[in-house]
Amino acid sequence: MFSNSEELELSLRWDRTKKIMAQSGVEVMIISDNTSLCYLSGRIFSGVVYITLDKDPIFFVRRPVGLQGKHVAYIRKVEQIPEILAERGYPQPKSISLEGDTYTYNDYIRMQKVFKLEADDVLSNATTIIRRARSCKTPYEIEQVRQSGVLHSKLYSMIPSIFRYGMKDVELAAELEYHARRLGSLGCMRIFGSTMEPVTGSILVGDNADAPSPFDFALGGAGLDGSMPVGCNGTPITGDMAIMVDQGGTFTRYMTDMTRVYSVGKLPELALRAHQTSIEIHQMLMERAKAGVATADIYNTALEMVEKASLGEYFMGHSQQVGFIGHGVGLEVNEMPVLAPRSRELFEVGNIIALEPKFVIPGIGAVGIENTYVINDDSIEKLTLCTEEIISLG
Amino acid sequence: MFSNSEELELSLRWDRTKKIMAQSGVEVMIISDNTSLCYLSGRIFSGVVYITLDKDPIFFVRRPVGLQGKHVAYIRKVEQIPEILAERGYPQPKSISLEGDTYTYNDYIRMQKVFKLEADDVLSNATTIIRRARSCKTPYEIEQVRQSGVLHSKLYSMIPSIFRYGMKDVELAAELEYHARRLGSLGCMRIFGSTMEPVTGSILVGDNADAPSPFDFALGGAGLDGSMPVGCNGTPITGDMAIMVDQGGTFTRYMTDMTRVYSVGKLPELALRAHQTSIEIHQMLMERAKAGVATADIYNTALEMVEKASLGEYFMGHSQQVGFIGHGVGLEVNEMPVLAPRSRELFEVGNIIALEPKFVIPGIGAVGIENTYVINDDSIEKLTLCTEEIISLG
Repeated sequence: MFSNSEELELSLRWDRTKKIMAQSGVEVMIISDNTSLCYLSGRIFSGVVYITLDKDPIFFVRRPVGLQGKHVAYIRKVEQIPEILAERGYPQPKSISLEGDTYTYNDYIRMQKVFKLEADDVLSNATTIIRRARSCKTPYEIEQVRQSGVLHSKLYSMIPSIFRYGMKDVELAAELEYHARRLGSLGCMRIFGSTMEPVTGSILVGDNADAPSPFDFALGGAGLDGSMPVGCNGTPITGDMAIMVDQGGTFTRYMTDMTRVYSVGKLPELALRAHQTSIEIHQMLMERAKAGVATADIYNTALEMVEKASLGEYFMGHSQQVGFIGHGVGLEVNEMPVLAPRSRELFEVGNIIALEPKFVIPGIGAVGIENTYVINDDSIEKLTLCTEEIISLG
Repeated sequence: MFSNSEELELSLRWDRTKKIMAQSGVEVMIISDNTSLCYLSGRIFSGVVYITLDKDPIFFVRRPVGLQGKHVAYIRKVEQIPEILAERGYPQPKSISLEGDTYTYNDYIRMQKVFKLEADDVLSNATTIIRRARSCKTPYEIEQVRQSGVLHSKLYSMIPSIFRYGMKDVELAAELEYHARRLGSLGCMRIFGSTMEPVTGSILVGDNADAPSPFDFALGGAGLDGSMPVGCNGTPITGDMAIMVDQGGTFTRYMTDMTRVYSVGKLPELALRAHQTSIEIHQMLMERAKAGVATADIYNTALEMVEKASLGEYFMGHSQQVGFIGHGVGLEVNEMPVLAPRSRELFEVGNIIALEPKFVIPGIGAVGIENTYVINDDSIEKLTLCTEEIISLG
């Protein structure tokens, strides 16, 4: 299924996962969510990854046909797992941990029956364990994010030449999606959580930035239809307004998250000042963030800066405000850690985070930038490198 | 939240849902899955729909702010639901049905605790109930599918002018996604099930059509990356090969599903014969399908036609074959009913189905067509109207 160098990469992830399992008192974990299964096996398949503290993981595969390697065991149904464990000399688990935040109730109960376990012997904390494992990236994963960042910047550099006065937000989105594809974008972002929806990104023009969202994205947008109420709503781009582009950097399987702002006509001083405050919050992050710093400290310091600048009513939305200013990024756009006031997480080496202090100015649109960073031992490095000032499109 | 005409439309859906609830012995159902919640309320919100046999549904909304109407009740957390039920004169439920095939284990258990119910008083069959309700469309929903079909056909009519000899499959995909957006596409398809992934569609060129898939799509494709192994893999389009285009018709919230085949160079007689057999299977469907006919009969008759033509080894895949030839379509691309050998479903008035008898010819690619149909009392009507023959691109 994979080469020696791939196995070496995966073994780093397995070791980290096992360490967190041990800390959490979990001996056997069964992973089914596509994203985490891809993290542990290197690719998507239909099936589950069975991971224990003291033995190699087993990939129980239903489909596709043809996967090879010592980790692979084919099954038609999960009820065959105990028999294959026995054949391979693995003990039957006395307890298991499943992904209670993504596994469906029916699949969960079925897996409990597969191993004839009591409800008390099935833990539902695998989601948290595997998300914590995924939150610290390996050097290979960081390099993938870095590559996405380079292409992401290249995409945004095309915006001034793509723009035509009077075009609709959705026409700009179509152009950006097209050029992203040409640069190798894999398509939709992977997103964690049932209150999210797969999108390629979000372009918010003028007052559409203030349309409140049902989703857990930082900002909303009315969308084109009530069945997908996020992002573009067909607003023509004329002056004077701000255009916020937050297109996903899905150029490798490890994405970057980046937002930039463009203007048509003249923006009021309030918008310019808010944008500058966002840039200063990023500077504050660059100065303070490193391994061991509390993510809540960054949030709280940012909020102080915002309130000192009397911008609180515009921060992270206006008609509806959200309670975070940043989040982990990687295989999914919303990984751990979260930069929120009550978060208890400390930055760790290898965290990849996106910081997105944004402001919604009524009648004008959204301003503020978002960058993706990697946390090092005693510093932080920016992975989304392109002009941060508001770029005038005419 | 909606106008009188919208309430009339929704009441048709509520009545059908309640009828199936009653048949299933369910008095109270709580719906959280975005797609089904949109079906019952007309839009996506963060929250749940509470639907009972004898009273109006209540939409318990967490976000967005600002929704209005007598059905709307705002909550911060689901634990507030019992109190609001009491305020509105609704009895506390003695049992509830939840969506066991989409609701996560943790959310399911939380909802059980909200109502202080025993495990036996919580049924997990709401997924089946609401999917059965959704499978028979109202006249309004059918009209939405019809509109998607018109734009879907328009999109495909552009393919000959978009094509350039030697372009990669992914470049053709980028162009099609671009033009789809310009025609009003909402983006990714909604898809049911945890072994599926959101995509905009699939273009399969040459032997990539035979790459086996981990997903429940009819055909596979290696994809651009192991993190999303479906569709385009970067194959240049040169001769002699078949190009299968199965781009989602997401032009309204009710989608059409349509596949057409294009060729470069000369295709062998085997491919042409297989394509013709696919067209004949569609003709058979047009002659036989109507309300009351078993979906399995259509599958089995199709299989007989395929075997009589000695095409069994190419049918619905070659290196890996799937066991269905069609499926419902609507808010999601894979709704009920399924056209499979052991299906016990009968066609009902208002079913929208996609039939996709396809063949994978090694060394050449995939052939066969897919159309979307609506089932009437004593007939069936095609909603995806454009040339069904293989179209030569040069």
